Amino acid sequence: MISVAIVGNGNVAFHLYKAFSSINTLKVSQVNSRSLDSIEPADVTIIAVSDDAISEVSSKIKNSLVVHTSGTTDMNGLQNITRKGVFYPLQSFSKDKAVDFTKVPFCLEVEHTNDMYLLEKLVEVLKGKAYHINSEQRKNIHVAAVFANNFTNYMYQISKDICDTHSIPFDILLPLIEETSEKIKSLTPEEAQTGPAKRNDEKTIKNHLNLLSSSQKEIYQKLTESIQKHGKKL
Amino acid sequence: MISVAIVGNGNVAFHLYKAFSSINTLKVSQVNSRSLDSIEPADVTIIAVSDDAISEVSSKIKNSLVVHTSGTTDMNGLQNITRKGVFYPLQSFSKDKAVDFTKVPFCLEVEHTNDMYLLEKLVEVLKGKAYHINSEQRKNIHVAAVFANNFTNYMYQISKDICDTHSIPFDILLPLIEETSEKIKSLTPEEAQTGPAKRNDEKTIKNHLNLLSSSQKEIYQKLTESIQKHGKKL
Repeated sequence: MISVAIVGNGNVAFHLYKAFSSINTLKVSQVNSRSLDSIEPADVTIIAVSDDAISEVSSKIKNSLVVHTSGTTDMNGLQNITRKGVFYPLQSFSKDKAVDFTKVPFCLEVEHTNDMYLLEKLVEVLKGKAYHINSEQRKNIHVAAVFANNFTNYMYQISKDICDTHSIPFDILLPLIEETSEKIKSLTPEEAQTGPAKRNDEKTIKNHLNLLSSSQKEIYQKLTESIQKHGKKL
Repeated sequence: MISVAIVGNGNVAFHLYKAFSSINTLKVSQVNSRSLDSIEPADVTIIAVSDDAISEVSSKIKNSLVVHTSGTTDMNGLQNITRKGVFYPLQSFSKDKAVDFTKVPFCLEVEHTNDMYLLEKLVEVLKGKAYHINSEQRKNIHVAAVFANNFTNYMYQISKDICDTHSIPFDILLPLIEETSEKIKSLTPEEAQTGPAKRNDEKTIKNHLNLLSSSQKEIYQKLTESIQKHGKKL
């Protein structure tokens, strides 16, 4: 039986503890990062605290294998003197929403190759998908995720602002948003790219710019230029 | 029984003809825009041709009610001397991919109120969803759709470019992309917005900028600034 200790009280700690607790073949405990004296011995100790606290929290842990769950922190940001690793779930977690771990890719990294088996085992019991990702790659995944998640959501925001201004119900765009995200499962972004920028339809671009506020216009122009240049690079 | 004539050979004409043909209570015919002499009389004549051709094609049609399927063209861009309307399906159509019309919102507009019933009936048999949208609103929906579809896809493109540069499989981001588009069904974009820009995490923003190419950096900065200002306006 694998034993797991989780350190932290945030969303990731909450959902990991909940998921591991439901599995009979695991023994799991959770402690607050301010109560590290009471941490139980465990095969894997998962530090799910804010990036800034990883260094200090890890320096106080004596358990054999300590991993963090951060997308942006180097594995060597851990200050425990025992073995190190990373167990980064690449998904957006909200406290109020149940997590479907079958849809969570885990970015795994270990200092000692033998420890990979333990981390992979944890991903397997959660029915997630394991990827071997080094610290440099993980930082780049984190910035790629800003585009795929935060900036994509901001595109939805601008769409909604336009709808609101013209008394159009935003739900009219939801099927298109769904189709756009569906398409990317079977087509590359290059293949899926359509629209006035892609086909150099300057007349439509000009009409669109006339409808937008000045800040929306700047973003429209910047992305249109970039799409046009991207096409040429290929 | 309602009779429908479809003019055009593009994706929209193809999928509408296919869908209407499968319905017993409709009589549907299709003609090429170069063979307008052979057009059959119909209750509704749907011109699904390129925006630039709408004016000329419509001027040659004598049928009683003529509608176009364009997001960007004014209803009065139709040059038939009979009744006019708009039947704009707000979805991305590809020739190779079957269209699920239950997920297609139709933006309807008519010159004569009584004709709305006919257009709504067509949407109903397709099991789509009808919206009453005037020409001004429709043009704004079209630009909102550029953000929700074309620019969102370009965010995926940049994510993929970053993955490619660092030998990361792009499929690691697909669950996050799916979750991002799912979330918007139950949260507003304001509620769903997370990330370093939203929480003014300047340290992470700086780290991210150092990882990006110059053109990626410009887009990251522009969108980050805009998210930060947007938060303040609310």
